[in-house]
Amino acid sequence: MIDLNADLGEGFGRWTLTDDDALLSVVTSANVACGFHAGDPSVMRRVCDLAAERGVRIGAQVSYRDLAGFGRRAMDVPGEELAAETAYQIGALRVFAQAAGTDVAYVKPHGALYNHTVHDTEQATAVVAGVVLAGGGLPVIGLPGSRLLAAAEEAGLTAVPEAFADRAYTPEGTLVPRRRENAVITDEDAVVRRAVAFAVDGVVEAVDGTSVTVAARSLCVHGDTPGAALIAARVRAALESAGVEVGAFA
Amino acid sequence: MIDLNADLGEGFGRWTLTDDDALLSVVTSANVACGFHAGDPSVMRRVCDLAAERGVRIGAQVSYRDLAGFGRRAMDVPGEELAAETAYQIGALRVFAQAAGTDVAYVKPHGALYNHTVHDTEQATAVVAGVVLAGGGLPVIGLPGSRLLAAAEEAGLTAVPEAFADRAYTPEGTLVPRRRENAVITDEDAVVRRAVAFAVDGVVEAVDGTSVTVAARSLCVHGDTPGAALIAARVRAALESAGVEVGAFA
Amino acid sequence: MIDLNADLGEGFGRWTLTDDDALLSVVTSANVACGFHAGDPSVMRRVCDLAAERGVRIGAQVSYRDLAGFGRRAMDVPGEELAAETAYQIGALRVFAQAAGTDVAYVKPHGALYNHTVHDTEQATAVVAGVVLAGGGLPVIGLPGSRLLAAAEEAGLTAVPEAFADRAYTPEGTLVPRRRENAVITDEDAVVRRAVAFAVDGVVEAVDGTSVTVAARSLCVHGDTPGAALIAARVRAALESAGVEVGAFA
Amino acid sequence: MIDLNADLGEGFGRWTLTDDDALLSVVTSANVACGFHAGDPSVMRRVCDLAAERGVRIGAQVSYRDLAGFGRRAMDVPGEELAAETAYQIGALRVFAQAAGTDVAYVKPHGALYNHTVHDTEQATAVVAGVVLAGGGLPVIGLPGSRLLAAAEEAGLTAVPEAFADRAYTPEGTLVPRRRENAVITDEDAVVRRAVAFAVDGVVEAVDGTSVTVAARSLCVHGDTPGAALIAARVRAALESAGVEVGAFA
Repeated sequence: MIDLNADLGEGFGRWTLTDDDALLSVVTSANVACGFHAGDPSVMRRVCDLAAERGVRIGAQVSYRDLAGFGRRAMDVPGEELAAETAYQIGALRVFAQAAGTDVAYVKPHGALYNHTVHDTEQATAVVAGVVLAGGGLPVIGLPGSRLLAAAEEAGLTAVPEAFADRAYTPEGTLVPRRRENAVITDEDAVVRRAVAFAVDGVVEAVDGTSVTVAARSLCVHGDTPGAALIAARVRAALESAGVEVGAFA
Repeated sequence: MIDLNADLGEGFGRWTLTDDDALLSVVTSANVACGFHAGDPSVMRRVCDLAAERGVRIGAQVSYRDLAGFGRRAMDVPGEELAAETAYQIGALRVFAQAAGTDVAYVKPHGALYNHTVHDTEQATAVVAGVVLAGGGLPVIGLPGSRLLAAAEEAGLTAVPEAFADRAYTPEGTLVPRRRENAVITDEDAVVRRAVAFAVDGVVEAVDGTSVTVAARSLCVHGDTPGAALIAARVRAALESAGVEVGAFA
Repeated sequence: MIDLNADLGEGFGRWTLTDDDALLSVVTSANVACGFHAGDPSVMRRVCDLAAERGVRIGAQVSYRDLAGFGRRAMDVPGEELAAETAYQIGALRVFAQAAGTDVAYVKPHGALYNHTVHDTEQATAVVAGVVLAGGGLPVIGLPGSRLLAAAEEAGLTAVPEAFADRAYTPEGTLVPRRRENAVITDEDAVVRRAVAFAVDGVVEAVDGTSVTVAARSLCVHGDTPGAALIAARVRAALESAGVEVGAFA
Repeated sequence: MIDLNADLGEGFGRWTLTDDDALLSVVTSANVACGFHAGDPSVMRRVCDLAAERGVRIGAQVSYRDLAGFGRRAMDVPGEELAAETAYQIGALRVFAQAAGTDVAYVKPHGALYNHTVHDTEQATAVVAGVVLAGGGLPVIGLPGSRLLAAAEEAGLTAVPEAFADRAYTPEGTLVPRRRENAVITDEDAVVRRAVAFAVDGVVEAVDGTSVTVAARSLCVHGDTPGAALIAARVRAALESAGVEVGAFA
């Protein structure tokens, strides 16, 4: 059994990015932007309503405060500030999740905050402190082996390791940085094949051809590229054909 | 018995405005800025912690999204957007109020949103819709006779009329607009005297010298001027000397 | 001879809206967003470079400071502030226009500021004061009969009246408000026909079937709808077929 | 002869920070905030008018886009973006400087951008590229030995090394990081004494008691602390008493 998560609600005001409606028919967990890198209150409300209606779980996709950079620029935010900013975003999203008859069920950092908390203990600890501050003991999605997941476990939260079907992996099981060539897998068949490999065998083929173990409880499918929803649907169909149950993590 | 409310936490990042610490020793209700006109997450957290410690009730001071104008510029925000923006702010503040062991207990619009919802039915209804969306059936503070309080009552919420000890009133019981001369009472003795008149007799002397009835359950003292906390303390002392119990509204 | 203008560079960070490249092959004047409703510095730079390369004139599309509302929410900005905000935006754009070997050649307010300055003398005067403050005696594009164009003329600036080929007109020659049904002409053939009527005869058919005189020196084609660039190209081709020279206003 | 520079115009909307009026009576160069970490258009205009009136030179105090963090949080901004953001800020300020009858005369990065470009070649080069993009061959103020000043020189710009009278220095001539104890000299007499030592002898006493050479053409006095203007005035008086001419760098 595996969870399928995607970033949603990444519009802002007049701008849209993700095909929220189509993605919500495919994924089991929706990482909803909370206003700091994308996602105004109206978008957040609409996505929460739709997710609740479809039975998709809602997660807070927390970010650095950086609309202009879409949260993709690492920032040296002091721990106390980062914890408060994290909690603020969770609280803001919770109001729409609860109004839709459900609740925020997990937290996943976005963009540069996600990448930075793989290695930076101070920020990882701060994000987790923000999750704790927000109450409810929410699970945290992150990269296997990341400081973020370690900090979540130390705080008694559920750490949910995830894998990326469309990203290249090093032999050590880490992601090939985006700035490198071939960091992103664009061959759709390969993406689908890798998704099944993660779910069935818990492995992925690394860039050097070796097979690496990646213990993932959730698979991230991207939503911000043209045709993203179609690829996500293909991934889901292939998983189900392979006998994998697609469902939100416990 | 009367409530004393003041705007708090109206700093942002490096900037501060109100003497939160001193005001929280005087007022019974703290209107905490929620990030749209002022109030970053760290400030919000600090003020909530301090308010909870002092037993001061926490209210969401919701605003138009306008940091550059401090929420003092009226905006034609469509109703759906305004409702979502209102709920977003309440949710964000709630996380810090709950983390401090208490909760958001009421809502009061700030600045231009406060003034605009005195007369504008659409925006008044939208703000109330946002309060309802946020859940918990929160009371709403506003001007007696305002569309805001009417909309709150129609929605089944508690409408809390308030008075301003340092503002001039027309013979009709409305505030003299700030742009008029003498709109603000700067004579401290007069401010104190008027506060007592509101609380004891439910009246205020209008600009033409006549006495006007103002049924207020809360008195607003300003926090953003030098010496504001001292005046607030004098008002509280005078109320207590006059036998008025100062306490949060029911 | 008539000018063709369109809004360009209305992306922000990760988001895009207009097909700048295609539009810059059609229009003679580019209204470039300056960062207040859209348009980050990188977008501004790219559009200016492209416009200069294509010989398209660059105008500053100034706006209220309202990214979340895309500048479509009217704001009560005091005149002094609005003048300074207008000048700020012109100055910021000028740096990229000059770096591209050309200069900002005119100013056109965006969205709610455009609509508001049709009737509001104070804001119209403030925008013009901002244009004057920015130096260079820049022409101002606006609606015929607007307070904005009147203020521009009073200040000794060139007032450039424009028409909208895809908007319905009242018998008085004003635009039918967007919230009314049929405010926008979606029939492409009608849009093209009306563009030619404006340019050749200086008239448009109003909603009641009567013919109204609209003295326009520039035609605005919209860039933020799918297929916008194609419609703009059809308009330009039809104008040229009808013997109208398409070129930037003097 | 030495230049005295200070950060000015670091308010935003309702908030103020620096005593611009008092500081402009003391310094010879005003680093004016350009809206990214502080400084709205109205503040920028007022400071430029006042600086021009007093004959104080105007510099663009460019920053990361970070109002919430006052530009004090380092950001991984890609070079192209950082160059465009730098040019945008210079252009925006230039409009007010020119309207006041003068012009932007130099550039100095603020806060985290200042610190980051001491060591980070990519960002230092990007800031300088932004200065070049903005035209006019503006001089750049920075730390002696910084990547920023090296990049400025490589680009053919004037590099202006500065010293801080109220900051502790390492024996290597670099600043003791703010997070260390004793990083900031709070003893006013010491500040004044060190200012004179910089100007007369080109040296400062390091934290280990040794004397370090610091070749500075400008002295930075801080403006964002209570009494800042008074200390600045004492520094200036002491310099003049010591026979040092206080004037803008060539």
